[in-house]
Order: sequence, then structure tokens, then C-alpha cells
Amino acid sequence: MVGSDADRRLKELGVVLPSPPIPLGAYVEATRCGSLLFLSGMLPVDRDDPKYSGRLGEELSIQDGYDAARSASLGGLAAAQEFLGSLNQIRSIAKLGVYIATPAGFREHPKVADGASELLLDVFGAGKVPPRIVLGVASIPLGLPVEIELIFEIEP
Amino acid sequence: MVGSDADRRLKELGVVLPSPPIPLGAYVEATRCGSLLFLSGMLPVDRDDPKYSGRLGEELSIQDGYDAARSASLGGLAAAQEFLGSLNQIRSIAKLGVYIATPAGFREHPKVADGASELLLDVFGAGKVPPRIVLGVASIPLGLPVEIELIFEIEP
Amino acid sequence: MVGSDADRRLKELGVVLPSPPIPLGAYVEATRCGSLLFLSGMLPVDRDDPKYSGRLGEELSIQDGYDAARSASLGGLAAAQEFLGSLNQIRSIAKLGVYIATPAGFREHPKVADGASELLLDVFGAGKVPPRIVLGVASIPLGLPVEIELIFEIEP
Repeated sequence: MVGSDADRRLKELGVVLPSPPIPLGAYVEATRCGSLLFLSGMLPVDRDDPKYSGRLGEELSIQDGYDAARSASLGGLAAAQEFLGSLNQIRSIAKLGVYIATPAGFREHPKVADGASELLLDVFGAGKVPPRIVLGVASIPLGLPVEIELIFEIEP
Repeated sequence: MVGSDADRRLKELGVVLPSPPIPLGAYVEATRCGSLLFLSGMLPVDRDDPKYSGRLGEELSIQDGYDAARSASLGGLAAAQEFLGSLNQIRSIAKLGVYIATPAGFREHPKVADGASELLLDVFGAGKVPPRIVLGVASIPLGLPVEIELIFEIEP
Repeated sequence: MVGSDADRRLKELGVVLPSPPIPLGAYVEATRCGSLLFLSGMLPVDRDDPKYSGRLGEELSIQDGYDAARSASLGGLAAAQEFLGSLNQIRSIAKLGVYIATPAGFREHPKVADGASELLLDVFGAGKVPPRIVLGVASIPLGLPVEIELIFEIEP
């Protein structure tokens, strides 16, 4: 039995994963410790080229933020697939962190974070939707509006 | 042997756990991966109704922040109890994250974070007090001043 | 077989670990849950005395930030060594979080975070370089510019 049928679901959804992101420094995109797969912070980039610029509640709309969260999450799936060979190795998702560049008064975090959560829901199904931590931060590398943290549980 | 006597301690302390929080989007409040229980970011809410508004070092006092950190942590215990059936299943606490909405010059983070740490100390005892990560952030969902992250280790 | 030869590498590099940091509240600096060692947020302090003041992109230069990230990481290694007895017990590094106090427009996060990543590279070798999460935050305890999060995987 496989951990999920995520590979098949991706095809059904017509989702093509992007190329995995390229590290911006002295780190790796993924590492496995026991049954947990830890990923680096995932950004809405095309390899190492930023796809958005600015903050939510200023230059960018809620829809931009939703799209950026989805894009960064797709990068996370690409990094996991590259590391594991197949997303079917994912048994569950331990953590989704959604970090959003915002000014102090921003209130619409959940609508942005759903861009990540709903992708995971579509790909892994309702039974694997993870808990999530959502924070508004001051800035994100490359001036991007969203960064995603993912920890997966892997088949033994 | 149980992991803790937290259920009894709660009664002795006269602490009544609130109703578990209601997700603000497409996520769950808790998931178990092996021996770890990961929770969503916990907010000082009454179900999904915010109990505070503003930032530390501005509208809110240190005491407000302490109370908000305690309130959010109680929500975390409620979510854990709902998932596990009993807090006695908690063997140890792997991580406490305390994220506080602040302006740039704020310095009193530890006093706010102690609202969470001291609750955990009271309920689980000195031997289970966890390490903690404390950050001042730009904004938190619903305009709340504090968000709490908890990862528990559970009895096998 | 040991998990690493980090103790020998430290000597070869001429790196003397600082005294472990002193908790600023009701928490511990490290706890072990199964094979994972979770540390508290590590600050560039001398015991509990801040070594820097201000934010990146304002009072402090990129080099200051790099040095602060390295200093905080050395504190993390000191806390791990105190808990484990020897850094050779570390099998891998699950997570490096680098949180940097910045204004909204800051873009140079990776150069600051490399102060942490390059220390870990030097001490543990290229095979153990961890993934990392890098965020610009509003404020950090004691007015410090950098905070480091580390989760280690330990030999069974």
C-alpha cells in the first residue's frame, strides 16, 4: 500500500510541477530524519527568479497572495518529489507554515493561506489536510510576498 | 504508566479548558505523525471570535499579552485533548513557539511568552517545560496580538 | 560509529564554543523527543547579554548580520553539546530557521542566513547541511537582530 495516490491526483488535476527551486545559499531543499521530511522555506519563484514583488495589503491583492501561496507550495511538492522519487511516499503532512509579508494592519491571512491548504487538499485529499501556522512577517527573501514551510511524514 | 497527570493538575488548578478553536480555512487543528502531535497556530479566540485586538507595545499592555499567550495556549490544550481524549497521553513538549505582533522597537517578548510557558509549567510540571522560539511579527490572523505553536510528544 | 566527527572538526577549526545561553523565562534550552533534539531560539548573546542591537538594513550591516547568525548558531551548538555531552551524537540536522529583524524593504536575507549555514557546513560537513527557513521579522527578544532555530536528529 502506498502512502497516497498524489501522483495520480496531480495528473487528474492537470497540475504540472515546476522545476524544484535552486538554493539561494549554503543549504539543501530537503532532508529526511527518520519518518519526517523537512523542506526549506518554499518561495513563489521560477527556479531562483521571483514571480511576485511586494506585500499583501499594499502592492498585492488577496488573489495575488493566494496564487503566490499555491505557487510556493507547488515548489514544495516539486522538491519533495525530487527527493522521494514519488509523492506517493507521503503518508501525511505534519506541518504547513504560511508566512506572509504584510504591514501591521493586515487581517486577511486565512484567505492567502488557503492557496496552500487548498492545493494540498486537492492533491492529497481531505484526510491528509495538515494543521497550519500562519504569520504576517516583515519581509521575505527576494522581496517575495509569501513563504511556505512543509514537513511531511513519509512511508517507512 | 501515563505520560503525565495533566488532567488531574488541570482540575487542581481549577482550569476549565475552552472549546477547541474552529479552523479559519482548509486545515485541521491537529495531526499525529508517529509520536509527535502537531497543532495549528493557536489564537486567543473564543471559538473563532477574537478576544484581543492590536499589538504589544501599542494598544496592548504586557499583561494583555501575557493573558493572550495563556489564552491561546489553553486553546492548544483543548485541541490536544479533543484529539487525544486525554492530556495524560502527552509524554513531553517538543516545541513552544510564541509569535507576538509588535512594532520594531519592542523588547519585552519574554514577559509575554511566559504567559504560555507558565501555563505549561503549571499543567505539566517543571520536568516537561519545553524549549521555546519567540519572535515579534508584523501581523497575526484576525488582528490578534499573539499566536502559539505547540508540538507534543505522545505516548506510543 | 558516531553520528558525526563534529567535536574533532571544531578543534581543527579552532572554534571554542561559548557558554550555553541562559533562559530568559520559564523554559529550557533543549529537549529530546525520540530521535529529535529541539532547541530554544538561539540569540547572539554572551550568556544573557546582547552582543548586537538593531535591525538589518538599518543600524546593522550585512556583515553584522552574518556574524550575529554565526554567533547565535554557536550558542545552539553549545546548548546541544551541554545536553548531549558530545556533538558527535548528532546524526543530521532537520531544520535551520533564521529569523532576521528587518524593515519591510530588506532583500539580503540569504547573505545573513549564510552565517548560520556556513558554520554548520564547516562543523558537520557538506553531507549534513540542513534545509532552512528564512524570514524577516518585526522584532526579536532583547532587541537582537537575529534568532536561530535548530532541530537535530540524534543517534539512537
